[in-house]
Amino acid sequence: MTAADTPMPKTVPGNYFEDFSVGQALPHATPRTVSEGDAALYTALYGSRFALQSSDEFARALGLKRAPVDDLLAFHIVFGKTVADISLNAVANLGYAACRFGAPVYPGDTIRAASTVLGVKENSSGKTGVVYVNSTGRNQDGDIVLDYVRWVMVNKRDAASAAPEPVEPDLPEAVPADELAVPEGLSCAGYDDALAGSAARWEDYAPGERINHVDAMTVEEADHMLATRLYQNTAKVHFNQHAAGETRFGRRIVYGGHVISHARALSFNGLANACKILAINGGRHVAPLFAGDTIYAWSEVLERIALPGRGDVGALRLRTVATKDRACADFPYKDSDGKYDPAVVLDFDYTVLMPKR
Amino acid sequence: MTAADTPMPKTVPGNYFEDFSVGQALPHATPRTVSEGDAALYTALYGSRFALQSSDEFARALGLKRAPVDDLLAFHIVFGKTVADISLNAVANLGYAACRFGAPVYPGDTIRAASTVLGVKENSSGKTGVVYVNSTGRNQDGDIVLDYVRWVMVNKRDAASAAPEPVEPDLPEAVPADELAVPEGLSCAGYDDALAGSAARWEDYAPGERINHVDAMTVEEADHMLATRLYQNTAKVHFNQHAAGETRFGRRIVYGGHVISHARALSFNGLANACKILAINGGRHVAPLFAGDTIYAWSEVLERIALPGRGDVGALRLRTVATKDRACADFPYKDSDGKYDPAVVLDFDYTVLMPKR
Amino acid sequence: MTAADTPMPKTVPGNYFEDFSVGQALPHATPRTVSEGDAALYTALYGSRFALQSSDEFARALGLKRAPVDDLLAFHIVFGKTVADISLNAVANLGYAACRFGAPVYPGDTIRAASTVLGVKENSSGKTGVVYVNSTGRNQDGDIVLDYVRWVMVNKRDAASAAPEPVEPDLPEAVPADELAVPEGLSCAGYDDALAGSAARWEDYAPGERINHVDAMTVEEADHMLATRLYQNTAKVHFNQHAAGETRFGRRIVYGGHVISHARALSFNGLANACKILAINGGRHVAPLFAGDTIYAWSEVLERIALPGRGDVGALRLRTVATKDRACADFPYKDSDGKYDPAVVLDFDYTVLMPKR
Repeated sequence: MTAADTPMPKTVPGNYFEDFSVGQALPHATPRTVSEGDAALYTALYGSRFALQSSDEFARALGLKRAPVDDLLAFHIVFGKTVADISLNAVANLGYAACRFGAPVYPGDTIRAASTVLGVKENSSGKTGVVYVNSTGRNQDGDIVLDYVRWVMVNKRDAASAAPEPVEPDLPEAVPADELAVPEGLSCAGYDDALAGSAARWEDYAPGERINHVDAMTVEEADHMLATRLYQNTAKVHFNQHAAGETRFGRRIVYGGHVISHARALSFNGLANACKILAINGGRHVAPLFAGDTIYAWSEVLERIALPGRGDVGALRLRTVATKDRACADFPYKDSDGKYDPAVVLDFDYTVLMPKR
Repeated sequence: MTAADTPMPKTVPGNYFEDFSVGQALPHATPRTVSEGDAALYTALYGSRFALQSSDEFARALGLKRAPVDDLLAFHIVFGKTVADISLNAVANLGYAACRFGAPVYPGDTIRAASTVLGVKENSSGKTGVVYVNSTGRNQDGDIVLDYVRWVMVNKRDAASAAPEPVEPDLPEAVPADELAVPEGLSCAGYDDALAGSAARWEDYAPGERINHVDAMTVEEADHMLATRLYQNTAKVHFNQHAAGETRFGRRIVYGGHVISHARALSFNGLANACKILAINGGRHVAPLFAGDTIYAWSEVLERIALPGRGDVGALRLRTVATKDRACADFPYKDSDGKYDPAVVLDFDYTVLMPKR
Repeated sequence: MTAADTPMPKTVPGNYFEDFSVGQALPHATPRTVSEGDAALYTALYGSRFALQSSDEFARALGLKRAPVDDLLAFHIVFGKTVADISLNAVANLGYAACRFGAPVYPGDTIRAASTVLGVKENSSGKTGVVYVNSTGRNQDGDIVLDYVRWVMVNKRDAASAAPEPVEPDLPEAVPADELAVPEGLSCAGYDDALAGSAARWEDYAPGERINHVDAMTVEEADHMLATRLYQNTAKVHFNQHAAGETRFGRRIVYGGHVISHARALSFNGLANACKILAINGGRHVAPLFAGDTIYAWSEVLERIALPGRGDVGALRLRTVATKDRACADFPYKDSDGKYDPAVVLDFDYTVLMPKR
């Protein structure tokens, strides 16, 4: 060091619990133009077969300008941008809520993300705290493509620092029907079941019905790292085996969103007409997933939701449960004490759009 | 289960031998818009270097509107769509024949697929049968991009069910010259050998000539699964290590088409001017390939075919043989009893387009 | 073999030392149209987050027509094309110099490459020689996108052949300031630090300053092979485990350029505003990298270069050092005898563009 004695710090240390305050606005770096390349990679990573996202012709027949990218690709891109500011020093990603999908994302759209702190609450240990943020992704026109709340447990920089006034936001158990956004111009009047792969429409699904998605997918290190880098998500635990070897797991942890995307792709077999995700009501990564694990999934229909003024489409609230190394013919979930089956890795509560008869 | 006592089945069990009948039409799900992203992934998966598919400028110089995607990418996409209806319960993929490539596939084209059953024949065991199907891929204008016959051995649902009248289609040994389709507008008059990577033209290849392609490629689990998912091929044996661990192989089986694409990419070194596949006359996956295996390949020129009215291009019928973990300097193939060398994994008979002097 | 007794050789053996002569022009095969798919794959392979290459909107705000692809993607594509003619029989890739980036590469551009031999010098062993080439990549308009000198040690075909007159080109220690090309139309007057991810501008970096890039990335076989195939680089050592198992390493060697791209992507954390590479002054692959290794990186600012007539941007000459399986908080480099720390794999000297205050 010759010319600069105390240079401005250049690397981003991430925020600690003390750095967050209610109402604080956090713009996130690296806007991202989503492309046909991203969409192709998404297909290669998950093998998703939903016709609306796969075919421009199918999308045009439903009134859209072309095939939008997978809703979860948009989610992962927005989520990825929040990591450096929200969860770089997180101990755990505790939950999601109130996630609404807005304008569809098309190749060519540029997404940027920003968050606002909704709540902070120090834990009794005095070493960590919970931070609630509302994160929003917008396209180049300023339209909201995604809006959600996430809460994470974050380390304090200094255990001796004073606890802030605790603030916990009110969060809905599920996104209400009147906040579910059907893409402008979309009509399922001419929906083609044969091309979509299933004759089962909205009316054919009943609350309480359970569906074993049968298929399964083994995750490789290269796969989940390609995915997580594609989302420009920089959480260290996914990438660095040299450091992970020293942790209690001894291995890299697969990004939880990668599991969600696999579960959604597997759900095609049984939910082929669930053509779009409208909302994520809640989600819990029950256990970590590692390369070499095989993901299975099953779903339960939680609710059949009529959409006001729509004769062509309705919504289904679903719970999709993913397991590792365990087939789902018997729908593994929780025992009578409410304890998860040890094979469960994901408990995902979301709302999808489906054509009506 | 509360609201629905006997819900409509939602998952696709696939067809069994009894479900097929001669003349039956099977539309396949999930139309697919092919993109520049798919083309880039194809390059990343195989490293293919044929100039016509690599460069828009090169393609335009030959009269096309831009670089078409690799012919085998179109093949894999169409093939992938047929799996759920044709071969989900297949014991073995027995063969291909009469595969003709039609209109080139360009980024932006949307491909859909449909099949017609040409033949059924129960096996003597009474437990399985052979089904012959003609599968066709079409673009958004209805033009045929690919048309082929495949036959598979499929499980019967019920061994006690009666055998159908056996029908076996007549299949050509090779696609005849007058059915080979040179893309409309294509002319190789101004073909640039230096850019294409070889000075060897159609006249320089003689029937009986054998070419060792020298290079080799090791297959990884992540690679072949990315490829097979990209093609939206859902055959379970490629993806589920948890279940594969219980099979006689103990491992996931690499999609046979992945081996074909590697063999074709390796064949560039020796056949750089084989700028387009016109037909697949027949193909046999002699042995399964697994991750960790290294693919080598060699080719034999079977026939030099003049194309009527064409001074600029001719066709070559080729046999490309791929091996695993064995170099091909001595052209491993069959012994005097017609038994394949144990290293051979693929015996592929196809016809390519090549510029003339 | 029946019809052709001595057919024209079809496979490319690559050039040996005797095949090179000063002034010789070598056009390279396989022009390549770069696409959005390549850009997406590049992001998936390295997780790069530089805003200028990530967002069309960000690029337009700086005066460009859209986001250019990563400079190193252009480098790898051009480099890949040279392999078959320059380094197929190379023993070692000795160095790079005088690498200048010219016109930005946009999706849709078609790149071709050609080389000229600048020098040849037989080694004292008589078995090998050093070949210096100037390689140039041009777009479809003939604009230079990349121009560099590389020297490689190449095997002689015949150790008994006479040594040529030795010619060694004069190479600059670094690309001079007046040869650094800021893309036409680019202005950083409205550069947005928040979107770019850092408030540190050109003036905030001082010669001698060292930056630990903190993050790290483990390399998988599938990753580096996907990358190297994407670049259509055919060097055998990266792909063939069957043959690599017999070498002293026993393994496939990761393409050195893959390490450079990882180091550049890691450098975002500390150099987020280093929005474009202008030049590569020199680079040394100090040790081979293998799958399973984890790459860390640190950088030193070597020089702050004012660009004539530019109030909006300046250049920084940097040294980025990459290590394997060793964190870089203490900046591992060379010992007092000039010997590299055993963890160092890359010593990379380059010049970047950065917005001024």
